[in-house]
This record gives sequence, C-alpha cells and structure tokens, in this order.
Amino acid sequence: MTTGDPRPQVLRVQNFMLSTDGFGTGEGQSVERPFGHADPAELASWAGATAHWPGRTDPGGTRGLDDYFTRDFHNNIGAEIMGRGKFGPQQGPWEDLQWQGWWGEEPPFRTPVFVLTHHVRPSITLSDTTFHFIDADPNEALRQAKVAADGKDVRLGGGVKTVRAFLEADLVDTMHVAVAPVEIGRGGRLWESPDELDDRFHHEVVPSPSGVVHHLLWRR
Amino acid sequence: MTTGDPRPQVLRVQNFMLSTDGFGTGEGQSVERPFGHADPAELASWAGATAHWPGRTDPGGTRGLDDYFTRDFHNNIGAEIMGRGKFGPQQGPWEDLQWQGWWGEEPPFRTPVFVLTHHVRPSITLSDTTFHFIDADPNEALRQAKVAADGKDVRLGGGVKTVRAFLEADLVDTMHVAVAPVEIGRGGRLWESPDELDDRFHHEVVPSPSGVVHHLLWRR
Repeated sequence: MTTGDPRPQVLRVQNFMLSTDGFGTGEGQSVERPFGHADPAELASWAGATAHWPGRTDPGGTRGLDDYFTRDFHNNIGAEIMGRGKFGPQQGPWEDLQWQGWWGEEPPFRTPVFVLTHHVRPSITLSDTTFHFIDADPNEALRQAKVAADGKDVRLGGGVKTVRAFLEADLVDTMHVAVAPVEIGRGGRLWESPDELDDRFHHEVVPSPSGVVHHLLWRR
Repeated sequence: MTTGDPRPQVLRVQNFMLSTDGFGTGEGQSVERPFGHADPAELASWAGATAHWPGRTDPGGTRGLDDYFTRDFHNNIGAEIMGRGKFGPQQGPWEDLQWQGWWGEEPPFRTPVFVLTHHVRPSITLSDTTFHFIDADPNEALRQAKVAADGKDVRLGGGVKTVRAFLEADLVDTMHVAVAPVEIGRGGRLWESPDELDDRFHHEVVPSPSGVVHHLLWRR
C-alpha cells in the first residue's frame, strides 16, 4: 500500500483448513502422511479448484468466492510464523539437516518464515522463501516477524497448536478458517466451536457454493 | 505475481455497485450530483464500512466478507479503463481543462487510466495516477491498457454503458457486482437481471451479512 496507509500491521490467519468437528490435522503425522490419518485432499479441494491456488501451474481454475480467499494469500503479507510441525514431522534435536520442509525448491511463502522450535538450526533459503528457526514465545516471535515484514502484515500459518498459543496470548487480529464438509474425529483440534471466540472477535459465517464454509473473524 | 505465473492477464469488473433493479447511476448527472438523482451513499455504504475502502483515512473498519472485495481493488491491477461519464459530467468538446476528475489530488487508481472519449485531450498525472484520453473501440482500448498494465490485470471501471459495451464485445473475463438493498428506478442500467449473462458466465450469488449481495461472474 502507499506511504501513509492508515491500516495497522496485523497478524492474520488465512485459508486455515478445518473439518466440521474442528480438526486441522489427524493423528500420526509422518513424512508420508503430513496430516496423519486425515486426507488433506478432503480439506483442501475447495482451494485447489481456484485460479489463485498457489500451487496451480495451469491457466484454469474457478474465480468465484473461494478464489478471493486463495488470491488473498500473498496480498500485503511480509512474513509468516509457523510451528515446527508445519515445517516437518520430526521431534527433538534435528537428526537430518537435509530435511528442508515439505515444499521442495519453491515453497509457496516467498517471504521470511519464522519456524518456532526449541531446537534452532541455521536458516535455509529456497527460492524467494527464507526459513528462520527461533526458540521464542509468541510475543517475541511476532516482534521479529513484524520487523521482517517491513510494514506488511504477518501470516500465522499454523498448525493448530501454534494458532491456539497465539490466540491465548491475544495476538491474533484476523482469522479466515475454511471448514470443509468432512469429519476427522481425532488429531489436532483448533476449537470445539468457533463460537468460543465470539467474545473477542466479530464473526461472519459465509457458506460457499463449493460446499466449504468460510469463517471470518476479526478482533472486536 | 512471480515470473512464470500461469494465470493469464484478464479484464476485471470490481466492486461495481448496483441497485436491486439493476441501475448503477440515476438520472441527471452533474458536478454536484455525480450519480444524478440516486444517492451514492446508499450504493456504497457497504464498501465505506470496510477496513480496505480506498478512501479510508483512519485505522478502523470491518474485516469480514465485504473487506475481501475492497481489499482486492488494487490486487494485481495494472491499469483501468473507464467511460468519460465516470471521469466527469461534461459532454461534447472539453470547455474547461481545469476539470481533472472527481477525485482531487489523490485519485484512488494509482495506475494508468484510459478514459474513453471522442474528444481527446492531453494526459493528466495526479499523484500515482495518470489519465490518458483515447478515442478507441473496446478492443483497441483493451490492447493499450494491457500493454500499460505490464502483465498485471486491467480493471474495467464503468460506468454502466462502458461495461455493457465491453460485454457486447465479449472482452470481460470476470465481474464482481455488489447489489445494495435500494431501488433507483431510472438512469443507467447494467441489466434487468444478472441471469442474462448465465449463458456466457459462471455465476455465484453471495449474500453478505451487511445486506449487500455480491454477484461473482467469470467466463465459461
């Protein structure tokens, strides 16, 4: 935006995919199954169908409501914060520094990304994305990410535990959660019901023709 | 977007404001009443309430569904095309070249803008916006605007007659029309019903909690 933009730098959850029973991932995450027993295609098919899905390599795709959400993914975002579980399935000290995330040579973020971990390691640059590994609480992580974002907003990328920690610290300004018509049953849960947040957030519920229901929340 | 973006350069109608009976403007346009007898506040209040309304000068505003539409206004747009009636109420040869549009020193476009008129005049630069006056048919206007947009999309800004002319020439790729809960009765009409376009466009109807109904159309 221009100099003098009146809008403050905010922390945004975007295109966060959830089941109707509130799970963002299943049980038993592994390299082969990043979402554990859950099928990520069932959570993400609404997004994959759109013209602006970051992974799209052909000129097709829908340009209706759902496309507004995928096309907003990079809009005025200058950095991302993610939990270690989003970067990889490993736990404890890193045993294989050759692991550079799930995304190959062209991660879709294209900004600095701050990965929260108690086990720091050297930064990794892949194309336009640089991953920094920091051992920090939510407040300190957000401070670093806002500096790196250089006036733009910061995306809070998940997973579920990370979003919950930032909600608990009252650091989340806006949330877009896309609830797909599927149940996961067990794993990582964001909420029992989005109404849990209604005391702190405005909350709009927007059903899409695709079958997904978009929940839009922003700080009161 | 990055080099190698698979999405083609498109012509987009965005945030086009309409009454329930299909009018974008009333009768009797003048300097004092850009929308004639119609009250533009009734058409635009949904947009003015959002955080990303281009005219906003304070840090407030809603961040729900409607905000996705106002925030998309500048997203990947490299040029605009508008009819002369959107630039000013004058007809025939320009009698006062001091008239530089309705928007003052900081027009909200921030790109080259191509104003269609049979009466050309020298270009005007105001802050980040440059108005070019061209006597061209829709095909030629779009060709020039696409070059100026430098790979980004082109916005078709209206008014109603201009949108109809580009629809007639089959040059419009996507349309977002926001129908406010108000009747205008007479003036400039875009359509009797959006269903008129269903043979050529996919069409989603998305009611907003604010009371406006968003129509999203994209080429089949």
